[in-house]
Amino acid sequence: MHSNHLQGELLYTGKTKQVFSYDNPELIVIHYKDDALAYNGIKRAQITNKGVINNKISANIYQRLEALGFNTHFVKMLNDREQLCKRKVHLIQIEFIVRNIAAGSMAKRLGLKIGTQLKTPVYELCYKNDELGDPIINAHHAVALGLSTYEELDEVHEIVKRLNKELINIFNGIGVTLVDAKFEFGRTADGTLVLSDEISPDTTRLWDTATLESLDRDRFRKDLGKISEAYTEIFNRLTDN
Amino acid sequence: MHSNHLQGELLYTGKTKQVFSYDNPELIVIHYKDDALAYNGIKRAQITNKGVINNKISANIYQRLEALGFNTHFVKMLNDREQLCKRKVHLIQIEFIVRNIAAGSMAKRLGLKIGTQLKTPVYELCYKNDELGDPIINAHHAVALGLSTYEELDEVHEIVKRLNKELINIFNGIGVTLVDAKFEFGRTADGTLVLSDEISPDTTRLWDTATLESLDRDRFRKDLGKISEAYTEIFNRLTDN
Repeated sequence: MHSNHLQGELLYTGKTKQVFSYDNPELIVIHYKDDALAYNGIKRAQITNKGVINNKISANIYQRLEALGFNTHFVKMLNDREQLCKRKVHLIQIEFIVRNIAAGSMAKRLGLKIGTQLKTPVYELCYKNDELGDPIINAHHAVALGLSTYEELDEVHEIVKRLNKELINIFNGIGVTLVDAKFEFGRTADGTLVLSDEISPDTTRLWDTATLESLDRDRFRKDLGKISEAYTEIFNRLTDN
Repeated sequence: MHSNHLQGELLYTGKTKQVFSYDNPELIVIHYKDDALAYNGIKRAQITNKGVINNKISANIYQRLEALGFNTHFVKMLNDREQLCKRKVHLIQIEFIVRNIAAGSMAKRLGLKIGTQLKTPVYELCYKNDELGDPIINAHHAVALGLSTYEELDEVHEIVKRLNKELINIFNGIGVTLVDAKFEFGRTADGTLVLSDEISPDTTRLWDTATLESLDRDRFRKDLGKISEAYTEIFNRLTDN
């Protein structure tokens, strides 16, 4: 029945998604837009059909993660641009990042050559705050800022470690290297900690393992072209198995 | 006998100190210069007698810390500008920072009002790398960069927690609030982890508890004047007891 978001009330407009209410108040509809952003919103564009592809990629990955036993916000895909998700009463205002290979802001900040295999996965926290440019923080900052507790951060860290392992496996299976990924978490009304937001080429760095070609948002950040084609390639490989 | 550094060979010239060899190869002579630097060396000046005052302040604090059972590099003061210290065969290339009150780079990065009492002490690691501007890192970066191990970082963290408590007490005793402090650590030839570098108004933020006036390097950073007077005030209060 609820195949169209117009049946719900717009609750929130984000940079690349909109959130609508659903008749069951414990659920929400997430609508994927075609907007592309980079460098804290300084660079913006529309990539035709990106929202459709990301909705489908994220749904595919979330289904796999649910099957692996992760608690996520995902319920089901409703249509090309929309998915039904659990409503979070609290969103942790932290980006949880894992990096397996040096790239992006970390490579630049720490003077590492892009492509350097890291000796250990590097976990980072960033304070979700556009005005401040999502600054990197640690657990102490997070607690001092009232964003989380040491216990919750430990709990999320264990989940992120497992997510990284499983996603490396999933992408290895389709000839893709998971360079890094960003996760977000929230809590549903009953207090369950759930993986939220999307997992897509917008929120990960994905390199073709054979060619090292970027199949992710770096194509937009670095003006490499063929953005939609790269995202479609990820979707096709995920669903061709 | 060794009252003058000229008897040793210059091993290293730092921004505010020089290091000379000593006849006992397990020891070094650290010479305090009058150079003042801020903002990663962009701002520079000479503050008459700063080296003398910092040598004396740091010696005073290190003697207290040694008496409290901390392992430090400090042996004894040799003269107004020099102290005898244990040679470190390895210096951990990390600045270990503790913050009790928001100030400096953290206040700016996280949008906190200067003077905000933090709910929990905030511990930070910075990669000692002038070219990169000493970027903030976490334990994972430190391990991935080969700067330390998780075990060593845990060991140092416990020491920094104790140092913070003891230094808060020491400064409280002289009407001074320890806002934040930076520590460095190394290992002597026998593998002992020792507190290194100086502890002085150059490496801490110290506010007069009654007036909230800065008695530290912020007077130089922010052109508040009376720099030498402020450092002397700290020294006088530490030795007037």
